[in-house]
Amino acid sequence: MTTSTQTAVLGVTGYAGAELARLLLHHPRLHGRPPVFAGRVDEKEAARGGVPLAEIHPQLADNNGTGNLRLESFSWDLLTARGVEVLFLATPHEQSREWVPEALARGMRVIDLSGAWRLSEPSNRAVYAFADEGSERAAATQAQAIYGMPELHRDQIAGARLIANPGCYSTSVILPLKPLTAAGLLDLDRGVVADSKSGVSGAGKAPTAKTHFMYAADNLSAYGVFGHRHSGELLEQIGISANEIVFTPHLLPIPRGILSTIYVHFKEAQTRDSIAKVYQQFFADSPMVRFYEKTLPQIQYVVRTNYADIGFQLDPNGRRAVIVSCLDNLLKGAAGQAVQNLNVMLGWPESEGLA
Amino acid sequence: MTTSTQTAVLGVTGYAGAELARLLLHHPRLHGRPPVFAGRVDEKEAARGGVPLAEIHPQLADNNGTGNLRLESFSWDLLTARGVEVLFLATPHEQSREWVPEALARGMRVIDLSGAWRLSEPSNRAVYAFADEGSERAAATQAQAIYGMPELHRDQIAGARLIANPGCYSTSVILPLKPLTAAGLLDLDRGVVADSKSGVSGAGKAPTAKTHFMYAADNLSAYGVFGHRHSGELLEQIGISANEIVFTPHLLPIPRGILSTIYVHFKEAQTRDSIAKVYQQFFADSPMVRFYEKTLPQIQYVVRTNYADIGFQLDPNGRRAVIVSCLDNLLKGAAGQAVQNLNVMLGWPESEGLA
Amino acid sequence: MTTSTQTAVLGVTGYAGAELARLLLHHPRLHGRPPVFAGRVDEKEAARGGVPLAEIHPQLADNNGTGNLRLESFSWDLLTARGVEVLFLATPHEQSREWVPEALARGMRVIDLSGAWRLSEPSNRAVYAFADEGSERAAATQAQAIYGMPELHRDQIAGARLIANPGCYSTSVILPLKPLTAAGLLDLDRGVVADSKSGVSGAGKAPTAKTHFMYAADNLSAYGVFGHRHSGELLEQIGISANEIVFTPHLLPIPRGILSTIYVHFKEAQTRDSIAKVYQQFFADSPMVRFYEKTLPQIQYVVRTNYADIGFQLDPNGRRAVIVSCLDNLLKGAAGQAVQNLNVMLGWPESEGLA
Amino acid sequence: MTTSTQTAVLGVTGYAGAELARLLLHHPRLHGRPPVFAGRVDEKEAARGGVPLAEIHPQLADNNGTGNLRLESFSWDLLTARGVEVLFLATPHEQSREWVPEALARGMRVIDLSGAWRLSEPSNRAVYAFADEGSERAAATQAQAIYGMPELHRDQIAGARLIANPGCYSTSVILPLKPLTAAGLLDLDRGVVADSKSGVSGAGKAPTAKTHFMYAADNLSAYGVFGHRHSGELLEQIGISANEIVFTPHLLPIPRGILSTIYVHFKEAQTRDSIAKVYQQFFADSPMVRFYEKTLPQIQYVVRTNYADIGFQLDPNGRRAVIVSCLDNLLKGAAGQAVQNLNVMLGWPESEGLA
Repeated sequence: MTTSTQTAVLGVTGYAGAELARLLLHHPRLHGRPPVFAGRVDEKEAARGGVPLAEIHPQLADNNGTGNLRLESFSWDLLTARGVEVLFLATPHEQSREWVPEALARGMRVIDLSGAWRLSEPSNRAVYAFADEGSERAAATQAQAIYGMPELHRDQIAGARLIANPGCYSTSVILPLKPLTAAGLLDLDRGVVADSKSGVSGAGKAPTAKTHFMYAADNLSAYGVFGHRHSGELLEQIGISANEIVFTPHLLPIPRGILSTIYVHFKEAQTRDSIAKVYQQFFADSPMVRFYEKTLPQIQYVVRTNYADIGFQLDPNGRRAVIVSCLDNLLKGAAGQAVQNLNVMLGWPESEGLA
Repeated sequence: MTTSTQTAVLGVTGYAGAELARLLLHHPRLHGRPPVFAGRVDEKEAARGGVPLAEIHPQLADNNGTGNLRLESFSWDLLTARGVEVLFLATPHEQSREWVPEALARGMRVIDLSGAWRLSEPSNRAVYAFADEGSERAAATQAQAIYGMPELHRDQIAGARLIANPGCYSTSVILPLKPLTAAGLLDLDRGVVADSKSGVSGAGKAPTAKTHFMYAADNLSAYGVFGHRHSGELLEQIGISANEIVFTPHLLPIPRGILSTIYVHFKEAQTRDSIAKVYQQFFADSPMVRFYEKTLPQIQYVVRTNYADIGFQLDPNGRRAVIVSCLDNLLKGAAGQAVQNLNVMLGWPESEGLA
Repeated sequence: MTTSTQTAVLGVTGYAGAELARLLLHHPRLHGRPPVFAGRVDEKEAARGGVPLAEIHPQLADNNGTGNLRLESFSWDLLTARGVEVLFLATPHEQSREWVPEALARGMRVIDLSGAWRLSEPSNRAVYAFADEGSERAAATQAQAIYGMPELHRDQIAGARLIANPGCYSTSVILPLKPLTAAGLLDLDRGVVADSKSGVSGAGKAPTAKTHFMYAADNLSAYGVFGHRHSGELLEQIGISANEIVFTPHLLPIPRGILSTIYVHFKEAQTRDSIAKVYQQFFADSPMVRFYEKTLPQIQYVVRTNYADIGFQLDPNGRRAVIVSCLDNLLKGAAGQAVQNLNVMLGWPESEGLA
Repeated sequence: MTTSTQTAVLGVTGYAGAELARLLLHHPRLHGRPPVFAGRVDEKEAARGGVPLAEIHPQLADNNGTGNLRLESFSWDLLTARGVEVLFLATPHEQSREWVPEALARGMRVIDLSGAWRLSEPSNRAVYAFADEGSERAAATQAQAIYGMPELHRDQIAGARLIANPGCYSTSVILPLKPLTAAGLLDLDRGVVADSKSGVSGAGKAPTAKTHFMYAADNLSAYGVFGHRHSGELLEQIGISANEIVFTPHLLPIPRGILSTIYVHFKEAQTRDSIAKVYQQFFADSPMVRFYEKTLPQIQYVVRTNYADIGFQLDPNGRRAVIVSCLDNLLKGAAGQAVQNLNVMLGWPESEGLA
């Protein structure tokens, strides 16, 4: 088991990047070995050694030293010179398509938070219209990618060179559904509905008409109906066909957090206990999932944690259930799950640095 | 056609009551004839003629005269003396169970905003556990009640003595579903899902753990799963059985507005146009419903209006749709619909005073 | 007295423009004579007669006809052809600097909501750095401008050709201070503090880092300290020197509303009644100001109204007071005050169409 | 230096109590020695060993053991049996007046988060109307109390038996003002204004009309003008008279965070550097204060940290400044400062467990 490692983060300027920086800076195994932060830096800033992290994210400034960290000008030489072993990418997916093969070629292990390498079926990737789709290099890279959800793929993650860190919505829908489909309980002919609601940080840091306070506040809107990018992850990971599930995202007037309300039919009548047992067994070794025996989770209980919370209510007739899952889109839905994957990759306790 | 009428409002202190007061005070047909506001008033206040409305709802104070209006001490004699013809009740349902029969006996027409008289099936009423359930008086009163949704029961409302004004959630689910069930399009065996989200005003004015800012803000929670009071209205008005629909309410961190996301299966493949035609025909004479031909409605477009907005997205396979409806829970979901009912009862233009 | 008039609005796409459209469309004197909406429209849209207003502001769509209104391609000929008598500009100030002289030359009366013509002292205008500063045309135009605060300049507004509609912050600070300085009560040597807090709509519709939901929500920040553009209006209208007042704006995490907390010293000890009398007399004929005798105003009481609410608390020693004023920045702080000015200009009741 | 200690928390059910529990459970020196949580527990709950902490604060539940912690039935014997050395009280002030003397008599060191023992001047305490005011026991207890603001009283805190943990508003006003008064820079004759704005958690967990979401959301209101309880702390700690400062609290529509905007006059013209030097020297050894050299702090930068952030803007004439301070009312304003005091009392690094 490795005792520590040298990490780097590309894309620290975004919301997930900021959370990733925070987690890595406080991770007990990385004490004294802060990540290298690299990206596009203008010449003037580069000349003074990069942009102070505290200027980019004032909330990361502290009087114990992180105030000195800087976003440096990216080059592969910089990463090599610093001995980077694990590279995190919190970059747009086209950037990840370009950088990940290069990083792998240079011997780094990669945890990519973008959607670039999550989907093995070309038809599911069509929505992204990747520029390098169909190239040999992309195919070879995709072949190495492991979907980074430890609760489903822990063993493969341990040995992986490339982790495709899951989407936030996807995580909130796959975790509550997978135990039920794996147990063969669902009547998929009658369809599954996943009605998801996410805070605004999920829409990214770029100011747009939809992230304007006046648009999001005091409002709720559905979007991406029958066509959201995360749909492919649901199909591949849950093992369900597009005709068997409907997934609708909504934009909530809150900074962070996702709640998914999921509607299922069972083949045979279930009891509260029979369902609970399925969940408890499935997540028995998963420290980052909290199963609620009696009540339903809420967004406020998971915000700023790496937990995925799952609870359900059973129709008195035993044939239908409403399942509620909650997580923080920037943590279990992004940066937290990335660190969880780091822990698994390096043989560290899965929840280390995530409490 | 009546040119004007004398109204009274019981229960003006709540949120729906405040909106009702605002609407009635600005209604063109009621100009110069403000409602009588009556309720529980302590002796000291009663002695000075009641509590100024502007003290109860400072936002209703204006320099053009409403500042002089008062909440007076309730008595039947007061209402009689003032010649009240139409009585609005924005009171708790147990209070409405008691007062409505008396008001009818005294010859007033009643528009009751509570859940007291909305349900004709005793089994659907069980959840309310009314104290007078089974009494002769209650049965006789219920027999006169018309469900006050003009889009469904316009003709009956015109002649009604007692209007049971619909629930807010119910309105947001019945309006988008009724045209489809009436047209016989839905495959109900595969189930309908109504995932509804409401602002906090729907939870009432009483301070509770759940209406505390710290509970509701930055949060989202589901509640009343498989057991919300409004379910019975859905069954009776849509004409659907409890096993064919699941309805889940959620508490949104916004003051007002409801968005319902509704999932349906069609018996046969539909086109965008075939569905649009069904809605347009159904609501052809309904000025308070806006059908969206191309986009989906959002809460921000309906807040502080009496509109119910409806839009949908069709699965490319034509067999499933996601329907989105929005309304303001205090207006089309309560006080606005009550005034709409008043207009229909008195033969006035249905949207008068509601623009 | 004019019974009606033909108006036009340039700049309807912004937040103040939308409110202005709403108010003018429902103004009783303008019934059946909707404003001409004009602006930049691309050729394709122009060819179909302009962009439907309901596409720009879905909340303005209604089933009673406004759905047919359009934003037409701007030209002076269009305004002339439609017989526009009163022109509202809700445009950026540089645009107003250019268009206002032209409109006056064509005989229209103008109500300009921008900061273009509010300041008579060149030194106070320096912060705007107008491109045409110092030109003869600008000087001639400025000479005609009346500061559009009816509570201060009602008579001049009645005869004005050009109204410079006040800034939102300025209105919230001038109205509560002017009665006290006019009465000579303040000890200005000890300084006046105006601590103002505004909702996000005041920052405009353009998506920027500061209007991003993630920046504004759950936050509060001060900005423009010792240098906000509205400062010059305070000096000119209150009659106070820059060394005697400090004005600090803050960005509130709410859509709309301004609250200003104002701290003053009195030359001599005052009583609650002596101060109240000053306010009551000053605003005796001002229907859009509500003076609070006992309590303090709050933002929630003024939002979506055209009122400016004023209240105060006196130090027991009688020598200091904390004054609180509230208004809706888009109404009394912009579009509402503009319509109030229209009413005064045309001899109509000052609060008409503003209830 | 103590290596660890046994703590107890009374009053864990409130917001500050929850934060205190979280901090103590993760404090590196207290690893494996969770606090004793005690309070009022009904008999049935007491019989099963108390109420699980995870039921009271679901966000504190984690899968690593804290799920087993319980709120036990309070008795002095329980605290003695568990060997409690340091007792935290997050209880109402009347409760603290009763319990603190008893705890001291039993040899525990006490950190009291209430307002019970913060004020040494009887006139400043009058606003609390303590039931035991004037008693010998109260006087003896007060004589031992040290105002727990390490930046001002570090040495005395180290040896204290009783810490009166400061108020949240007080902390946000004292920290930015004390360096300036200590340096003798202020012209107090012209008065100091402290305009403070706090999130709703500062109003406590009890549901009231003012903590209702509908009251607080989309609103801003001033309260406690010329009479807030925290005023006495300002006078005693800053060393300023009541006539020289005005303090106005406001209720912000956010869960947590305080921003205070403070207006001062200087006796002589200052430069940006002269002021900066005063702050930097005063806080040179204070790890929990961040001084902003160029920009102003915002609430978003301090929420969920124990930092107090301070920045300022100087009038170009050098004679006036606007100072902005920010902190999290539940951390530096309550539980975080309490843990900071614990660190100082036990000789541990002041910011330990607070990063």
